[in-house]
Amino acid sequence: MSLKETNLYREIHAQPAALSLLLASEKENIQVLAQEIKKRNISYVVIAARGTSDNAGRYAQYVLGAHNGLMVALATPSLFSIYGQPPQLGNALVIGISQSGKSPDIVSVVAEARKQGALTAVLTNETASDLAAQGDFVIGLHAGTELAVAATKTYTTELTAIAMLSVALSEDRKLQEELGEIVTAVDSTLTMFNPIAAVVQRYRYMEQSVIIGRGFNYATAFEMALKMKELTYTIVEPYSSADFEHGPMALIEPGFPVIVIAPQGKMLHKLTGFIQKLRDREAEVIAISDSAQTLALARIPLALPRSVPEWLSPITTIVPGQMFAMLLAHARDYDIDAPRGLNKVTETH
Amino acid sequence: MSLKETNLYREIHAQPAALSLLLASEKENIQVLAQEIKKRNISYVVIAARGTSDNAGRYAQYVLGAHNGLMVALATPSLFSIYGQPPQLGNALVIGISQSGKSPDIVSVVAEARKQGALTAVLTNETASDLAAQGDFVIGLHAGTELAVAATKTYTTELTAIAMLSVALSEDRKLQEELGEIVTAVDSTLTMFNPIAAVVQRYRYMEQSVIIGRGFNYATAFEMALKMKELTYTIVEPYSSADFEHGPMALIEPGFPVIVIAPQGKMLHKLTGFIQKLRDREAEVIAISDSAQTLALARIPLALPRSVPEWLSPITTIVPGQMFAMLLAHARDYDIDAPRGLNKVTETH
Repeated sequence: MSLKETNLYREIHAQPAALSLLLASEKENIQVLAQEIKKRNISYVVIAARGTSDNAGRYAQYVLGAHNGLMVALATPSLFSIYGQPPQLGNALVIGISQSGKSPDIVSVVAEARKQGALTAVLTNETASDLAAQGDFVIGLHAGTELAVAATKTYTTELTAIAMLSVALSEDRKLQEELGEIVTAVDSTLTMFNPIAAVVQRYRYMEQSVIIGRGFNYATAFEMALKMKELTYTIVEPYSSADFEHGPMALIEPGFPVIVIAPQGKMLHKLTGFIQKLRDREAEVIAISDSAQTLALARIPLALPRSVPEWLSPITTIVPGQMFAMLLAHARDYDIDAPRGLNKVTETH
Repeated sequence: MSLKETNLYREIHAQPAALSLLLASEKENIQVLAQEIKKRNISYVVIAARGTSDNAGRYAQYVLGAHNGLMVALATPSLFSIYGQPPQLGNALVIGISQSGKSPDIVSVVAEARKQGALTAVLTNETASDLAAQGDFVIGLHAGTELAVAATKTYTTELTAIAMLSVALSEDRKLQEELGEIVTAVDSTLTMFNPIAAVVQRYRYMEQSVIIGRGFNYATAFEMALKMKELTYTIVEPYSSADFEHGPMALIEPGFPVIVIAPQGKMLHKLTGFIQKLRDREAEVIAISDSAQTLALARIPLALPRSVPEWLSPITTIVPGQMFAMLLAHARDYDIDAPRGLNKVTETH
């Protein structure tokens, strides 16, 4: 089968349309949720999710923290599902995020939250799922059925739904306008396909890698690493540049491949400094950036064609990450749509 | 230099004495902190830490959640230090954890918490540090100077200080008695040195691995993986067995080495089931466990000599992890006390 006939290829390219539909469909629903959050004086958020959806939760930690002053905790589902000793959720907003809405451990967190009287919201592509049934608010992702095992369009719609909630809470017209530009920006990112296709051959026999992101794009490092593991069977560990300096830096030897997610914004100078440290150790740096100066420091620069405000950049920076993983899997003649050992729906308890 | 003359060897073996001193020295201090937490009706906790200390924070998520009903969030320091947009901490307890008490980004979180009027506590081995200066309560680790770059005795004392706080909050005599047994249990774990020394030769040329832990021992997976990265320069990624099934399971091919932390307790049957799945895929399983049945399923069983209640098991299960990393580094003729590219104190902003 040619690459362009795979579900994954189609779903990556369906992202602009999916985001556009989501923005049009859920604005009011999310505004009502935002009003309820304010009415209840909620000051912190607990997110229950696994895999790709957990990475959307990582994005929520930054965007709801930076723009809305909300502390965001990632739940520890086993306290609810295995130990039966759930913490008190008090006046938290509890958000369950799941493409399928089916994982029992995630359902158990949101069900317990509801039992405790906490406000619950669910982000899911399946609004008739067990998880959706536990939400006071259900926000559909409107991504259409996702057939490839590796999630792509459900991830970027999850990020966008979270960005929409942040905008609704902030009531900030500038943020609203910035969000309105995201569809065009994601669409232009798809033009990175050819440059990435040319580059992945170099990594045909790469056996391990590290992906660095920090701040808003900490989530991107995790999500690109997950795509690389799922699709290319390469052990790729995500790290914040700060955490990486607390020990794992010892891994770096000449030629060690490090992918750095470094779009423009407040974090850029930190990541550029980090790339310098990697260069001092003769690592091989692959940079995803829209800064010419940062790209010039990389062995392999992957230039983002369009700049967006930093808080929205995770919605664009992941797209080359998805394409890199898909194209590397293709270069290795792996099954793009059905990686070994995985099913589309994973039910963990 | 012989292995037994290294600082790391000495510090691993100093752990029983360090825990004993901590238990005797900080009990009252921690009781006063527990009273203040109750007086203020605190229902959630924010922890700021990096590296090894962040793994102690992961333990706190489970023990303070399961025994004390507290939601625990791990802070996103860059919102405080780089973005200058800290979330509202409200009525949280904010705990900074750092061996050296020096990392500026961790100091910035606790300083902001103090500015916002939140209750702050600091766990540190350096009670005269910048971080300690920001704590309403300062809990010393009493571990003595740690000279090896890889943290060991400061990790197990951090875990023990958190366990002490949980006991003080619970006022549960049974938990108090269980904690009293931990020094003897850690001491007996040191007898695993010879069996581990015999086993590590097998992994002289291992280039990658995954470490699985879940629930209370999710922290152990992260901390053992960090020791392996720091000391043996091997890429070793930690995972919860549940998260691992959401994608990374695709990595597993015959012979792929997976270390599973599986002490007795409520999580054991999940991990034993997970080991079965790994066997179906012909992975090489190294199990750290005190269950004969679980050990029998592993290619390489590492038997814990003494069983402890599950909530305390992270304080014992990490010890064979520390010794495995040290002995493997020694088998590879690496510098045990000063891994390449690292300093003892890492200051990140």
